Amino acid sequence: MTTSYGPSYVRAIAPYVAGKPISEVARQFGLDEARIVKLASNENPLGMPESAQRAMARAAGELGRYPDSNAFELKEALSTHYGVPTDWITLGNGSNDILEMAAHAFVEKSQSVVYSQYSFAIYALATQGLGARAIVAPAVKYGHDLDAMAAAIADDTRLVFVANPNNPTGTFVEGPKLEAFLAKVPRHVVVVLDEAYTEYLSADNRYDSIGWVRRYPNLLVSRTFSKAFGLAGLRVGFAIAQPELTDLLNRLRQPFNVNTLAQAAAVAALNDKPFLEKSAALNAQGYRRFTEAFDKLGLEYVPSHGNFVLVRVGHDDSAGDRVNLELLKQGVIVRPVGSYGLPQWLRVTVGLPEENEAFLAALEKTLAAV
Amino acid sequence: MTTSYGPSYVRAIAPYVAGKPISEVARQFGLDEARIVKLASNENPLGMPESAQRAMARAAGELGRYPDSNAFELKEALSTHYGVPTDWITLGNGSNDILEMAAHAFVEKSQSVVYSQYSFAIYALATQGLGARAIVAPAVKYGHDLDAMAAAIADDTRLVFVANPNNPTGTFVEGPKLEAFLAKVPRHVVVVLDEAYTEYLSADNRYDSIGWVRRYPNLLVSRTFSKAFGLAGLRVGFAIAQPELTDLLNRLRQPFNVNTLAQAAAVAALNDKPFLEKSAALNAQGYRRFTEAFDKLGLEYVPSHGNFVLVRVGHDDSAGDRVNLELLKQGVIVRPVGSYGLPQWLRVTVGLPEENEAFLAALEKTLAAV
Repeated sequence: MTTSYGPSYVRAIAPYVAGKPISEVARQFGLDEARIVKLASNENPLGMPESAQRAMARAAGELGRYPDSNAFELKEALSTHYGVPTDWITLGNGSNDILEMAAHAFVEKSQSVVYSQYSFAIYALATQGLGARAIVAPAVKYGHDLDAMAAAIADDTRLVFVANPNNPTGTFVEGPKLEAFLAKVPRHVVVVLDEAYTEYLSADNRYDSIGWVRRYPNLLVSRTFSKAFGLAGLRVGFAIAQPELTDLLNRLRQPFNVNTLAQAAAVAALNDKPFLEKSAALNAQGYRRFTEAFDKLGLEYVPSHGNFVLVRVGHDDSAGDRVNLELLKQGVIVRPVGSYGLPQWLRVTVGLPEENEAFLAALEKTLAAV
Repeated sequence: MTTSYGPSYVRAIAPYVAGKPISEVARQFGLDEARIVKLASNENPLGMPESAQRAMARAAGELGRYPDSNAFELKEALSTHYGVPTDWITLGNGSNDILEMAAHAFVEKSQSVVYSQYSFAIYALATQGLGARAIVAPAVKYGHDLDAMAAAIADDTRLVFVANPNNPTGTFVEGPKLEAFLAKVPRHVVVVLDEAYTEYLSADNRYDSIGWVRRYPNLLVSRTFSKAFGLAGLRVGFAIAQPELTDLLNRLRQPFNVNTLAQAAAVAALNDKPFLEKSAALNAQGYRRFTEAFDKLGLEYVPSHGNFVLVRVGHDDSAGDRVNLELLKQGVIVRPVGSYGLPQWLRVTVGLPEENEAFLAALEKTLAAV
């Protein structure tokens, strides 16, 4: 007898494929690590802020001890910054952990989860991990169609994932439309509003989702320190929701899920406004450079509100992988998105000016050679 | 209508109660942090090894980037150290993450999990989190009764947790008995052998569990860097199992579950044999001091093979909490274990000699005052 361990729904999961690390590309293509440009994982090209580095150094003497399971200082800082009580806050090992906890806390196998076509891969993985049914609402112009999503909610739906801006497409839904959607969702269905890229929004696009949490007991806002805050390698994200939802997440939270250094660094990064402003300005500048270059090259792209842009590099379904391989050979790592049903596209993170130029030069060379 | 979010089995979970952090006890009792002695969480009193601190410092420049999802260097180091291929290794955000992943990967709601009375709290939490049935085998002398556990395996059992040494009791089952148990467990039932404290075993008690993994496709050995290796604050643990089990765990693993600094520090700590030897010797010495003092005080204790000892501080069911409170007032943090069904006992981590003396003095004073 061949033994098959685990539930069939776990065996059916296709694992997440991460952006290739620089070291791996160097090994694979025989390249010098220092000359590789990585624009694959929507990281902040400025790296970690100095304020956070200093905070981390101060906490480095305590690493033989377990982290503070309740993250007293970080919760106090978040509470002050966002104007919510500490018992409205859940911390995660990155916001990935928040998304997994939410699925696990609010949904069981016999129920369903709604999310949009072309939205973040973890929504599908978290749903599959429970053996729950995924209801994928069709996208409109590569972004969320909130009317279609509201209509897709079934009797057994307990969770809706909304990403704003969305990854990997960069699309954005304006605040008033989003709030109208929240008002329509039945109260027994939890809405996880994933705002991993919210710090990159221009001033005129901002909206007050934390204010909505006060009005909607079924809303959970998910945020991360991995993008604009520059702490991807340390792993810290958080959720804001009313106590009923927060309490359930914390029943499932691994007690020491956020490490000591991440807690200390996040407190500093949270209050480093100059760093955030510099990051947003650098991103806006790089995004303009990318889109102007794509226009010149005659390449279609999806207007983006994040720190990345989805660009169409061909019109056959091997285009994404083919161009990606040529870029890798030139030491440029971007993200193919065939697994998202977008095989003609690549997702490119906005980097430092010199990284952006390296990518554009490699792209131009690749496309000219086809 | 009152809305109750989430499955009933999630709502029924009582969250894990962590050992109190020093900062929290200082706030609560108005004490000076520097004078508090924490012997509550089975941490290595020597803290993090210097070798790991140096490795961490070298990796600190890359924290704006996501960690390596596949942890190439750490897996290579573990592969060499333990003599298994890299595709037999799963990394966790502490071994807590491994235990949760294992439950999730191998068990569903309609099935059951076997573990021992008085064993690690996370086994119960992970089982409850799935809505699965817990079968708790009665302990013998506060330790695992492997015959009772084998007999407890039901038709719907898919997972057995065995801790060796066990936490919070410190009991130990000899290698040959454990292997006889493995031989008896049906092949479709996964055995998670949690060896968080294995590095503290004396030479004559060691056994080759990694060798067993080669023979038993249903065995998963779980280890941690949080105890003897001194990296509790960084969060890293790992599992060793044949590829079929390993592959399933990795389908559920959060792609960036182990942070960059933890990966770098673990490589260094793994190969720091002098630090491990020093830690084990310090522990043996402190354990002798504790047990001699308990003998003098006429206190019952459970002979321990870990870096902690379970001591009975009274014969009524408020004894543990009462003595714990008096110790806290004197700035000594230990672990009450009423939630384990051991309300007359306290679990005390072996610390530095001066910490051990501070605990013993506070304990003696408390017991004399009763």
